[in-house]
Amino acid sequence: MSRKIRMGMVGGGDGAFIGAIHRMAAALDGEIELVAGCFSSNPERGRTSGEKLGLAADRIYPSYQQMIIEESVLSPEKRMEFVVVVTPNDLHLPVSIAALEGGFHVLSDKPAAGTLEEVIELQREVFRSGKIYGLTHTYAAYPMVLQAREMLNRGDLGPVRRVTVAYPQGWLALSGDSAGSKQASWRTDPARSGESGCFADIGTHAHHLVEYVTGQRITDVCADLGSIVEARALDDDGAALFKLENGARGTLTASQVCGGEGNNLNISVYCEQGSLFWEQESPNELQVKRRGQPIDIYRAGADCDYLEDKVRSRCRTPQGHPEGYIEAFANIYRDFAQSVRCRWDGQSTEQDSCVGDIQAGVRGMAFVRGALESSRKGSSWVSLTPYWE
Amino acid sequence: MSRKIRMGMVGGGDGAFIGAIHRMAAALDGEIELVAGCFSSNPERGRTSGEKLGLAADRIYPSYQQMIIEESVLSPEKRMEFVVVVTPNDLHLPVSIAALEGGFHVLSDKPAAGTLEEVIELQREVFRSGKIYGLTHTYAAYPMVLQAREMLNRGDLGPVRRVTVAYPQGWLALSGDSAGSKQASWRTDPARSGESGCFADIGTHAHHLVEYVTGQRITDVCADLGSIVEARALDDDGAALFKLENGARGTLTASQVCGGEGNNLNISVYCEQGSLFWEQESPNELQVKRRGQPIDIYRAGADCDYLEDKVRSRCRTPQGHPEGYIEAFANIYRDFAQSVRCRWDGQSTEQDSCVGDIQAGVRGMAFVRGALESSRKGSSWVSLTPYWE
Amino acid sequence: MSRKIRMGMVGGGDGAFIGAIHRMAAALDGEIELVAGCFSSNPERGRTSGEKLGLAADRIYPSYQQMIIEESVLSPEKRMEFVVVVTPNDLHLPVSIAALEGGFHVLSDKPAAGTLEEVIELQREVFRSGKIYGLTHTYAAYPMVLQAREMLNRGDLGPVRRVTVAYPQGWLALSGDSAGSKQASWRTDPARSGESGCFADIGTHAHHLVEYVTGQRITDVCADLGSIVEARALDDDGAALFKLENGARGTLTASQVCGGEGNNLNISVYCEQGSLFWEQESPNELQVKRRGQPIDIYRAGADCDYLEDKVRSRCRTPQGHPEGYIEAFANIYRDFAQSVRCRWDGQSTEQDSCVGDIQAGVRGMAFVRGALESSRKGSSWVSLTPYWE
Amino acid sequence: MSRKIRMGMVGGGDGAFIGAIHRMAAALDGEIELVAGCFSSNPERGRTSGEKLGLAADRIYPSYQQMIIEESVLSPEKRMEFVVVVTPNDLHLPVSIAALEGGFHVLSDKPAAGTLEEVIELQREVFRSGKIYGLTHTYAAYPMVLQAREMLNRGDLGPVRRVTVAYPQGWLALSGDSAGSKQASWRTDPARSGESGCFADIGTHAHHLVEYVTGQRITDVCADLGSIVEARALDDDGAALFKLENGARGTLTASQVCGGEGNNLNISVYCEQGSLFWEQESPNELQVKRRGQPIDIYRAGADCDYLEDKVRSRCRTPQGHPEGYIEAFANIYRDFAQSVRCRWDGQSTEQDSCVGDIQAGVRGMAFVRGALESSRKGSSWVSLTPYWE
Repeated sequence: MSRKIRMGMVGGGDGAFIGAIHRMAAALDGEIELVAGCFSSNPERGRTSGEKLGLAADRIYPSYQQMIIEESVLSPEKRMEFVVVVTPNDLHLPVSIAALEGGFHVLSDKPAAGTLEEVIELQREVFRSGKIYGLTHTYAAYPMVLQAREMLNRGDLGPVRRVTVAYPQGWLALSGDSAGSKQASWRTDPARSGESGCFADIGTHAHHLVEYVTGQRITDVCADLGSIVEARALDDDGAALFKLENGARGTLTASQVCGGEGNNLNISVYCEQGSLFWEQESPNELQVKRRGQPIDIYRAGADCDYLEDKVRSRCRTPQGHPEGYIEAFANIYRDFAQSVRCRWDGQSTEQDSCVGDIQAGVRGMAFVRGALESSRKGSSWVSLTPYWE
Repeated sequence: MSRKIRMGMVGGGDGAFIGAIHRMAAALDGEIELVAGCFSSNPERGRTSGEKLGLAADRIYPSYQQMIIEESVLSPEKRMEFVVVVTPNDLHLPVSIAALEGGFHVLSDKPAAGTLEEVIELQREVFRSGKIYGLTHTYAAYPMVLQAREMLNRGDLGPVRRVTVAYPQGWLALSGDSAGSKQASWRTDPARSGESGCFADIGTHAHHLVEYVTGQRITDVCADLGSIVEARALDDDGAALFKLENGARGTLTASQVCGGEGNNLNISVYCEQGSLFWEQESPNELQVKRRGQPIDIYRAGADCDYLEDKVRSRCRTPQGHPEGYIEAFANIYRDFAQSVRCRWDGQSTEQDSCVGDIQAGVRGMAFVRGALESSRKGSSWVSLTPYWE
Repeated sequence: MSRKIRMGMVGGGDGAFIGAIHRMAAALDGEIELVAGCFSSNPERGRTSGEKLGLAADRIYPSYQQMIIEESVLSPEKRMEFVVVVTPNDLHLPVSIAALEGGFHVLSDKPAAGTLEEVIELQREVFRSGKIYGLTHTYAAYPMVLQAREMLNRGDLGPVRRVTVAYPQGWLALSGDSAGSKQASWRTDPARSGESGCFADIGTHAHHLVEYVTGQRITDVCADLGSIVEARALDDDGAALFKLENGARGTLTASQVCGGEGNNLNISVYCEQGSLFWEQESPNELQVKRRGQPIDIYRAGADCDYLEDKVRSRCRTPQGHPEGYIEAFANIYRDFAQSVRCRWDGQSTEQDSCVGDIQAGVRGMAFVRGALESSRKGSSWVSLTPYWE
Repeated sequence: MSRKIRMGMVGGGDGAFIGAIHRMAAALDGEIELVAGCFSSNPERGRTSGEKLGLAADRIYPSYQQMIIEESVLSPEKRMEFVVVVTPNDLHLPVSIAALEGGFHVLSDKPAAGTLEEVIELQREVFRSGKIYGLTHTYAAYPMVLQAREMLNRGDLGPVRRVTVAYPQGWLALSGDSAGSKQASWRTDPARSGESGCFADIGTHAHHLVEYVTGQRITDVCADLGSIVEARALDDDGAALFKLENGARGTLTASQVCGGEGNNLNISVYCEQGSLFWEQESPNELQVKRRGQPIDIYRAGADCDYLEDKVRSRCRTPQGHPEGYIEAFANIYRDFAQSVRCRWDGQSTEQDSCVGDIQAGVRGMAFVRGALESSRKGSSWVSLTPYWE
């Protein structure tokens, strides 16, 4: 490592869960330094947050616009090099575009923007700017998810036939839950969250996980979305049948109203010669069932020789020392930092990054759009390829 | 117990997996006695099988028709009291109807018959005959499945919102698998198996489990079925979205081509205040997640005071002594025997039986029919209520 | 199978847990027939029990002595062929000796007798009589325990280095528990249970499991036994260090006062190249950890090709169909029946039986004696070899 | 948070596993800043390591002595405030004493020193200096371990009766393993590791976990230690019986030669009314079995209301977002930082810290000494209280 990469943050002030996670993840490997921020739409609150984080007063900004303008004119040795966007969904687009236009790389919470049209607009800007753009699909950054991907890509288990992915959460199970917290309130508000609630929020994670693990795109969707808690304007629950490029089929369930559930994202990939299972709540294990063999449990560990090299390099500890969500998030930061560093050297961007790209963002929102459309049309099949071709 | 109930068996000769299971299950509690049988369509093989089982030579019959005729004329103290049907699917209907017409109760492997029309025909005969008819939906007979049913029926977890049921198997994953075994060959042959393969064979189990556990009927289905292994005439894989009577939604997956899978039937029921999980491969545990509480693991055991009384009476051993598939099957026999005994006493049939009735059989085949129809029509929603109303 | 083997039972009347288990296990495979019994020390209760079981009135005996005498004079085609002893511990010796002297084979609940001296006396009688004698160490009869034994015997994992076995139960955790049930009361009464409580009752199971799985005998013990519940005359809790023949070390814990525990017998065998783990409460799985490999989960199943043939023959169902305690017990009966049948043919007794022999019974009680002695002497090491050499 | 606390590190240069973990843990919460270091006994390698970490050249020292002297004379606003000791065991004592004498707080890897006498000497210096001294018994810093401690201390499960703790590892299973890595080589060398190998290295972790969870001290030990791999000078495997202050008994197993094992520290605490289970490899779950109740699985999560407040404050993420070893380690740093901050304010040190204190260090080495002595004397009981009274 030559020197730390300088990061500016938009959003993530005091009390924001995801902002704190981002900072811990960015700090973990000592490769990134938080140098600037606009932590709240309320300048006073933003300032307090920045001070607590030990930022210099002149690098705490009252608006993201101001931050981008003022940082742009700092010397290259001083100014931030990328912006991380951890605001509510409705600001993902304007902040990202402003940052790209200002000449900064962008790392953004998902979804990339509130609607499909916006993400496509953003994609244009990403391509135009030539800057690095990344989406934090955290779950793809767990080492054992990469191990699954490698095994499937190599064909160890034969062709993929069926995928089952489910993401049940329970934190919005009651109508009162939406009122209870800052995160819940904007997530159930169409004006701030976009055209979809649950499917945009976590359905996109499930969608991305399927595509990342199988190495195939979801081409068609047949969905049934709904709002179970009364008076909720956006979907809070739904399920879909889907097709993959190779003809394999699958089901995707996403719900935020499953009482008692935590964050139980899980995926099963069934192939001709064997099947794979992974659960986010036990992320260090990958279960592999092969025809006529004992079940294999692959375990994360920097010293596990039977894992792919690139998987081991996503582990910080030897086997038996559990890693978790923050380490997965830190893998995103590490790969993003690596991409930034490649630019310094004029190299092309790292190929095997676990950071989602803007195309993944477009496909994710296309999936949401397709699911909404299918659901409105009595669960007819909707082809997604027109959206991203 | 006053005396053993006398059983005649059709099918289940040497080498037939399910016949041996039936005999073990029937023997377990010492309430039932095998007195007659027609064990094979090949009379010679049937005779050998019967002799090995220690049956008197004159109670081993070359055809089921002959068995029914000859047993009918034996003295009431001697003749068989019910017929268990463990043949390939295509014989379920004729054997059942012959037995009912002959004045015998019938316990039948599922599906009740090969097509929906046949099951409806059978239903008429059951009603006409006034005899007891039971279907062996074994998985409903596990104690912890009843515990789940009781908790949901009582509303412990609030209204059901979503159900996920999956039944992945792998034993037909390759085309060669169909040739390999007796069971596989008739199960993939339309002439013997009926209009559907996988959905009739195991999709009906998943369907029944949903209805049994939730106490609600599946009213609509939107399905996508297929034949993954080339040149297979019937579906070997599929998935469906469905609706329950109360408006709750669900997904059902059934596949026999998931490489490496055994018999992994599993169900999740998500409710407003909590959620339930059960897996057939670990049947003695029921996982219950309640909002704001630790996860509870309920365990089977005749001495587990926290279980419902009727659940405990489905356990033969104290907690920590695992029971399995054969014991579940024996619960079917015990409840069926109890129904037969009620008839002796002129009582109505036991209410809380885990034996499937003919109406469940009709709904199961209606589900298969609806799924096939939906799948043919581009996964449009198909209402099932017309079939059984 | 030519014909059923005829069994007489001593003990196991109405309400006796273990008697009912024995009968189910004996019935499961249809190879054994209960023809005679003395089910209670109270003749009236014994008669009622026998009638409920459908025994002929003249084969229900008021005393075991009378049963042995009267059965002896029945014709060889009619009389019982072996006696199963399911009484409280204090009767194991006299019933077994009477049966052997009467010319009957014996299958006995463990421990073989109440004290070491008694078991040695019984061993002499077994040898003198030439009859088959078996002990029901049920846990050794699970298929995956045999799989473990085979792998260790073959040296798959290198030499055994350390064994950890534990058997925590909770059913005697409170002083009131002893009063509560028939089983508890005699088990905590020295006059009926013998010189030891917990160690004789379940410590012997743990001891036997270690020897069965490793194929090695425990040669030395260093123990600390105690009575945790006040006013209990016999040990209800204890632990020991031990040595195996090859120098490997281990710990054995047995306790009946662990609040909340069921029947949590579990064993870990650590070897040079890998380690094995098995838990009785999840008996269909065997976990194998090998150096530098994913963890393997071996699963029971008659069709699991990767299991040893003899392991598969201890399974009645294909993989994914769980078997349990009753099936394990039935394996004991099946192997015992096989031994009896070998005698008919003049063959030597089956080699790979899962039935414990009298020598195992002697070693088990020697272990109890050694543990008691060690505990009395401040946990000094006691050599067990003098007891059984 | 007012400002970051300044840390100096001794040891932990390039390639040292534990040094990197310390730095990640210290960085995670943004409360600590690495300002100085002596990373290797080889000054050149130390310098390179420091540069990679971005330290100013004048704060990278060729010897720990020089570091302490030079830092002492820096201004109070600049100089390091505490020293973290991550060297091989033989340097723990001299570095810690030098740092304390130099006026710095000390956070040290365990064991506190190589022998009991040295730890007692260190204890004197800690008391004399008045500085804060902490030991990184990482496993006590997992949130669910604290939850267990709180429940036991409050008596939720009644009095503790028996404890089973085991720490099997496999990384030294073969003689070649010691040669293979830097860590392995010094850990098996008496000159650098002290009087014990396995028991000092990981037996002390198991010992500390027992005392931390139960809130009781281990008073007596009866042990059997050995060296299984030929030509190894120190114990690499062993087990012990032990007694707690309240008379409860336990077993402790520690081994580094269990082929295939990772880092499988686990503890069971059996009480009158229930029992607790925790495994380090699945650290976010605590299993609680209560008499007559379903099993409870407590899960870590900052938003899990049913957990103790102080437990929730050791979680950084909501339920369902796994945390791991690095987060546990970071809890140590957070509590240590809190203690340092209390000193600024003149408050007494935080009471509920998860950092081990020097007395725990003394008791840990007393346990090792007692176990060695017991083992030498034929596993006789050795009282530990003389060592720390």
